[in-house]
This record gives sequence, C-alpha cells and structure tokens, in this order.
Amino acid sequence: MAGMETSCGAMRKIRLVVQYDGTDYAGFQKQPHAVTVQGELERALAKVLQADTPILAASRTDAGVHARGQVVAFETHSPIPEARLTRALNEALPPAIGILSVEAVGPQFHPRFDAVGKLYEYRIRNCPTPCPFVARYTWHVRRPLDVEAMAWGAEQLVGRHDFSAFELSGGSAATKVRCLDLLSCVRRGEEIVVSAHADGFLYMMVRAMVGTLVEVGRGRMAAESLGRILASRDRSQAGPTAPPQGLCLMRVDY
Amino acid sequence: MAGMETSCGAMRKIRLVVQYDGTDYAGFQKQPHAVTVQGELERALAKVLQADTPILAASRTDAGVHARGQVVAFETHSPIPEARLTRALNEALPPAIGILSVEAVGPQFHPRFDAVGKLYEYRIRNCPTPCPFVARYTWHVRRPLDVEAMAWGAEQLVGRHDFSAFELSGGSAATKVRCLDLLSCVRRGEEIVVSAHADGFLYMMVRAMVGTLVEVGRGRMAAESLGRILASRDRSQAGPTAPPQGLCLMRVDY
Repeated sequence: MAGMETSCGAMRKIRLVVQYDGTDYAGFQKQPHAVTVQGELERALAKVLQADTPILAASRTDAGVHARGQVVAFETHSPIPEARLTRALNEALPPAIGILSVEAVGPQFHPRFDAVGKLYEYRIRNCPTPCPFVARYTWHVRRPLDVEAMAWGAEQLVGRHDFSAFELSGGSAATKVRCLDLLSCVRRGEEIVVSAHADGFLYMMVRAMVGTLVEVGRGRMAAESLGRILASRDRSQAGPTAPPQGLCLMRVDY
Repeated sequence: MAGMETSCGAMRKIRLVVQYDGTDYAGFQKQPHAVTVQGELERALAKVLQADTPILAASRTDAGVHARGQVVAFETHSPIPEARLTRALNEALPPAIGILSVEAVGPQFHPRFDAVGKLYEYRIRNCPTPCPFVARYTWHVRRPLDVEAMAWGAEQLVGRHDFSAFELSGGSAATKVRCLDLLSCVRRGEEIVVSAHADGFLYMMVRAMVGTLVEVGRGRMAAESLGRILASRDRSQAGPTAPPQGLCLMRVDY
C-alpha cells in the first residue's frame, strides 16, 4: 500500500533515528553562520531527495553534545524506498553524523510534541590521566569522586518536581515541572556514568544536575542538601553546569 | 642518586609513553606549516621545562594514524620530578594528545634504534551502517568480509621475509627484510581487528598488508596468492593501501 502511494509521488512523512558526534558542531539547531547538525542533515536530504526538505527534531542538543538516538521527521514527495534512503543519506552525510533507521510514520507525527520520554547519559572520566580517545565524549575529573554519595544525592531529585533550580536562565518552558523517573550514578571502569530519564528536561537541566552531583562527589556539597536545593527553585543554589562533551541523547520514547 | 643529580640541574634523559588521536594532525613528524604531534609535544615541553627541548620518537606515524604507545625521548636540565612532569605536560597538551608515563632512562637510550619490536592494530568496521563514534578510528567496509580467508592469507606473511611487495615507494630502509612474528585477523563484534607485530615495519607496510587482506576478505584475491605476492617483491602485485584512520601504534618493545 505504502509502495503504491510512494510510486505516485504522494506526500510521505519519514522518521529518522540519527546519531552524531557533536564535537565539531555549533549544536543541533540551524544557524546562519555556523555548521550545525540540522544544517548538515538538511543539506544531505536536499541532495538525496532533490528538494528542500526542512526537518523537525525531538531535541535541540547544544554545541558539543552528542546523540545516539536523536529523532527527526520530514515530509517528502520522493518515491525513494526507505531502505535505500538510509544508505543514500549516510553516503551524503559527513562521518560525524549517521542515520540509524528510516521509517514511514503517520502525517500527524511530531518528533518533539509526541515524545513522552527521553534518556540522556553523561560520562565522567574519573582517573588521574586524560585519554585522547574519550576526551571528546567525557568530562575529565582527575580526583576520585565519591560515587555512593553522588548516587544518594541523585535519588533525592527523582520524582515529579519543579526543577527551576536546575534550569539555566534562558529556558522558555511554560511549566518547570518535570517527572524525573531515573537519575543513577554508576562506576564503569575509569568512568562514572550518570543516566537520566524524564518526560522532558528543562534547558541545561541534565548538565546542571551532573555539575551539582560532581560537587557532591568532590565532598564540596552534602548529598543530603540536594532536596533542599531542589525545593529552593533557585539556580544559584545548585552547582555549576557540567561541560557539554560528556552528554549524549540516548533515546526518545513515543 | 637520580634525585641528587636532578637537584643539581644535571642533564637527564627522559622517556615518555604518549597516546594520541591522530585525526587532526599532519602526522607525527614536525613540519614547518602544519600542526603535528611532534610540534605539539615540543611546544608543551618548552612551556613546562622553559627550554627548547627537541624530541626523538620510536615511530613517525603518518597523518591520521593514532598511537596508544608511542615512545619519545628528550634531554633536559630541568629538576622537575618525573611524577610532576606527567601532569604538567598533560595540562599543557591539547586533549587529543596524552602522556601515559614518564621515566628517567640512561643517556644512551634511543627510542627508534633501541626498539626491538612494535605492535600495531588496525580496526575495520565491517557492518552496513557507519558509526560517528568510531569513524575516526576505523575503516568502514560495508559488505561482510570473510575473516577466515583473511586470517589464512595473513598466516602466509608471517615469518622473516623481504617485504618489498608491501612497501610504498618512498621508503628509505636499507634492507627490506623484516621478521613479522604476528599477523592476526579477529572479529570483535562489528569490527575486524588486524594485529601486526614485527621487529620493524617498512613504509606503509601495515596499511598495504591490511589493504591486501581486505581484498582477500572481499573475495577479489585468493588467500593462497599472498605467499606468491610476497615472493614477487613487487608492490603492484599486492592490494591497495588501507586508509590511515584504522591504524594505531599500540606498543614499542625495548
């Protein structure tokens, strides 16, 4: 059925799952004088589909932030089969951006408004020596962090709360209430991995939480204080914003 | 004893084990108008030791080639303790270059002439989809390679031979005879890893061997032909040179 439609050149809506190394991009969102992930994706789509093809994305990741499961959608009249599209796009894209999957979706699908959850991972390299092969993907913290204290602090943020204390000014969300159903800190070899899952995140919320948890891990903040900081709704009570390169958008749920 | 000497500012010879992501460098060796690993190391040493400090290296890796165990040596009058030097250099170096260890060695030590063996690893990503997170460190070959045929072909190159058939023109080695005591091809998940250990390698020798083995894996060359190609001493008989980004200098033996 879909095949008949596409061979007539009818409008199709396509959903892509995209991964990228965000190091060398000025973030996801298109900007006039900077190289962005959206700009590269739209350039590749224009080349493959032979038509201007604006995209919508689940998340506007910041400069230097990575994705293993960003979701974008676009409409096209092109009859190209989905299976061919994956390979054609991957050949048109730079090596730092890759298409994981291509799928036809209903005309109402919206990658941002239809998302019901997102999973982020933040990697901290926590050992004395830096490593060039993970420098692009981790925050390097030399001194040993107390991961048990971090995990205990993280637990106090889990739940349905007003997260204003962890939103960088400039966020435009109408309500600051989010349901954070996972915030875990786990040591994996030389790394500490912070995983965060919620129905949505405020501007820079994951990086503000990670920056605060690292203060706890360093012993500069008490794990017990995180509940009070959350309740204050005051960004200046929380710790600094962690740098972008440790953050990765792992998955978007629909 | 060493402590006494250094406190007098006597000359010390220091050996560094260095790792780097070679993607953004025009190779190891210093060049007047390009950013090189040697250039960055000497810049960091000049800053930390407050003196021009030329270095010698075990291997002049090519543009885009990586290292996890490059060895360099230099002489210094600076009394800085070895333990402090590691951290000071890592802070002065860009994230793509890291010092793994610092050790005082005898005045006669030469990182290239004293090396008795080197281990290289070449990573091939062998699956249909590209991955942005390993694109800098692997050669992406989409179609499934016959790793058993590659391993059988590799075995025929092991031993003490004249490797002229796998040297790119431009090599300056006086003798083309090397003792290759390991050449293995192993599948590790989505990758095929080629490991090569020898008493020394000719110019581009590992990449020529990998390029030839991939021809075997693709079914374009017979595994049985590698002995004949080796015996021909003719570069045009072997396969193409594999791209640089899959290659990594893992270890230098003394």
